[in-house]
Amino acid sequence: MPEPSVPATAAPPLGCLAIVGLGLIGSSIARGARRYGLAERIVAIDADATVRERVRDLGLADHVTDDAAEGGAQADLVILCVPVGAIGPVVAEMAPRLRAGAVVSDVGSVKASVVAAVGPHLPASVAFVPGHPVAGTEYSGPDAGFSTLFSGRWCILTPPEGTDEAAVERVRALWQGLGAVVETMTPEHHDLVLAITSHVPHLIAYNIVGTAADLEAVTESEVMKFSAGGFRDFTRIASSDPTMWRDIFLTNREAVLEMLGRFNEDLSALTRAIRWGDGEALHRLFTRTRAIRRGIVAQGQETAEVDFGRGRAGGGEP
Amino acid sequence: MPEPSVPATAAPPLGCLAIVGLGLIGSSIARGARRYGLAERIVAIDADATVRERVRDLGLADHVTDDAAEGGAQADLVILCVPVGAIGPVVAEMAPRLRAGAVVSDVGSVKASVVAAVGPHLPASVAFVPGHPVAGTEYSGPDAGFSTLFSGRWCILTPPEGTDEAAVERVRALWQGLGAVVETMTPEHHDLVLAITSHVPHLIAYNIVGTAADLEAVTESEVMKFSAGGFRDFTRIASSDPTMWRDIFLTNREAVLEMLGRFNEDLSALTRAIRWGDGEALHRLFTRTRAIRRGIVAQGQETAEVDFGRGRAGGGEP
Repeated sequence: MPEPSVPATAAPPLGCLAIVGLGLIGSSIARGARRYGLAERIVAIDADATVRERVRDLGLADHVTDDAAEGGAQADLVILCVPVGAIGPVVAEMAPRLRAGAVVSDVGSVKASVVAAVGPHLPASVAFVPGHPVAGTEYSGPDAGFSTLFSGRWCILTPPEGTDEAAVERVRALWQGLGAVVETMTPEHHDLVLAITSHVPHLIAYNIVGTAADLEAVTESEVMKFSAGGFRDFTRIASSDPTMWRDIFLTNREAVLEMLGRFNEDLSALTRAIRWGDGEALHRLFTRTRAIRRGIVAQGQETAEVDFGRGRAGGGEP
Repeated sequence: MPEPSVPATAAPPLGCLAIVGLGLIGSSIARGARRYGLAERIVAIDADATVRERVRDLGLADHVTDDAAEGGAQADLVILCVPVGAIGPVVAEMAPRLRAGAVVSDVGSVKASVVAAVGPHLPASVAFVPGHPVAGTEYSGPDAGFSTLFSGRWCILTPPEGTDEAAVERVRALWQGLGAVVETMTPEHHDLVLAITSHVPHLIAYNIVGTAADLEAVTESEVMKFSAGGFRDFTRIASSDPTMWRDIFLTNREAVLEMLGRFNEDLSALTRAIRWGDGEALHRLFTRTRAIRRGIVAQGQETAEVDFGRGRAGGGEP
């Protein structure tokens, strides 16, 4: 992959950027902000001593602390990169000492519940601009991050109506500086879109990997050996961070249940087609789904390489 | 990926290898057989004139024909690489002119129904050794093949009891020559194992991509844009060859329905956990599934690279 193109932003770099939670996403923001000169100063806040030590060793921030209130007090922009369920309590802790005119944002995969959890804590002088970069890998922790994680990926902002435009601009500039493409929508629509493009796929992947592990007629060793037939792709998704995903399902319940209902209806029809030997119905669906794949590849959200480029040794020969 | 290690086989190379169906798998066998010197002569049989022309242009075979009976009459080993539903008719056409002592094999993803379809047609002087290389990509056709497709992958043989050991050995030698690791089991067990490691994962992927395409509240363009959250992995699987997959579900019906039943039971329990906010049950499952992933990576059936190595630009920096 070529070096990502980082659009020049008209905005001057931030003064102080505080990042709460230095996992995959938080540490990638820190790396990118430093690499592309997006902030004059970076403060890293994490409750986990091991993480703080790694952040210091990796040189990801100018100041590292476990004190959210103290760290946040210096910030022009605070980005919350903790699991969705932890966002409310962290904001409650920081709120009293935030500077007037500071902006708070987050990277949670669910937005309506985050808006509800944050709103009551913030003073009127601090704007909240919820965000969600649609990017990630199956790895977790400060060592898993990298500065180009967001390059060419979408970042969705869901500012409540009436949010100060300058505050939205400050958050937008950060994401554009990291190479992301920014789009705005309502929190509710975000949660519906992500339920089908991310949450339900993860749930299904977790589910089938669990089903396979529980079989008596097929051993776990056989499941692993013969996984190249399709199963192994599900295991990648099903190895994502458990706490983060637990919180997503607990906080985006309605949209996930709605999409799961649709999924189940369709699966029942497909099961019926198999039981009754309706080859035409199967072939029709299997043909239709190819078009979506082509669209995703065309939009640059996916590589067209065989098998994602994995496992193909020495191609190009006749 | 390094050059695959191809184990030295004690067996002398085959005389004539006939391949029926020069798609992804058939053309990969032809390429590998030539590259590693596994047959003195390769005959390519395909009913599709466009495919035959590509096979001639690519120089994949010594003789190219649409006449299965004529092509098969020369062979010491015939490998059927057509969709499972086409195997019976092709064998019926070839059978009368096969040489005594010839061996027939296939690469179908379903085995019990293939054994039932082939058995009645073959004379006693011709052995049938069913096979299934657990390897593939989302692409189809003679241009999609490559000689190392089977390197380090498993190939399952399901010879009926009493099959001539020399015949099994001839097929085993070909696959080992192509770099595969060979395992034998009964056709019925094969079908159960593949139902969970391949068939149901494909069905679920096809299903969710179909569900996403049918939503009214979320546009197709949004699904494509924000697919990096997990959905896009499903679209890769759901872009596999429709005819091949229709035949798999029609011929491995019982095992697929059994495994789908298990999947659905587990999904109901998971849905219930979401509805009732049972975070502990969710976290427990999401933690358990990580172990399976680690096993697959450890067994060399998967890369440990982030996101399969896709999309990570310029890693390694702090």
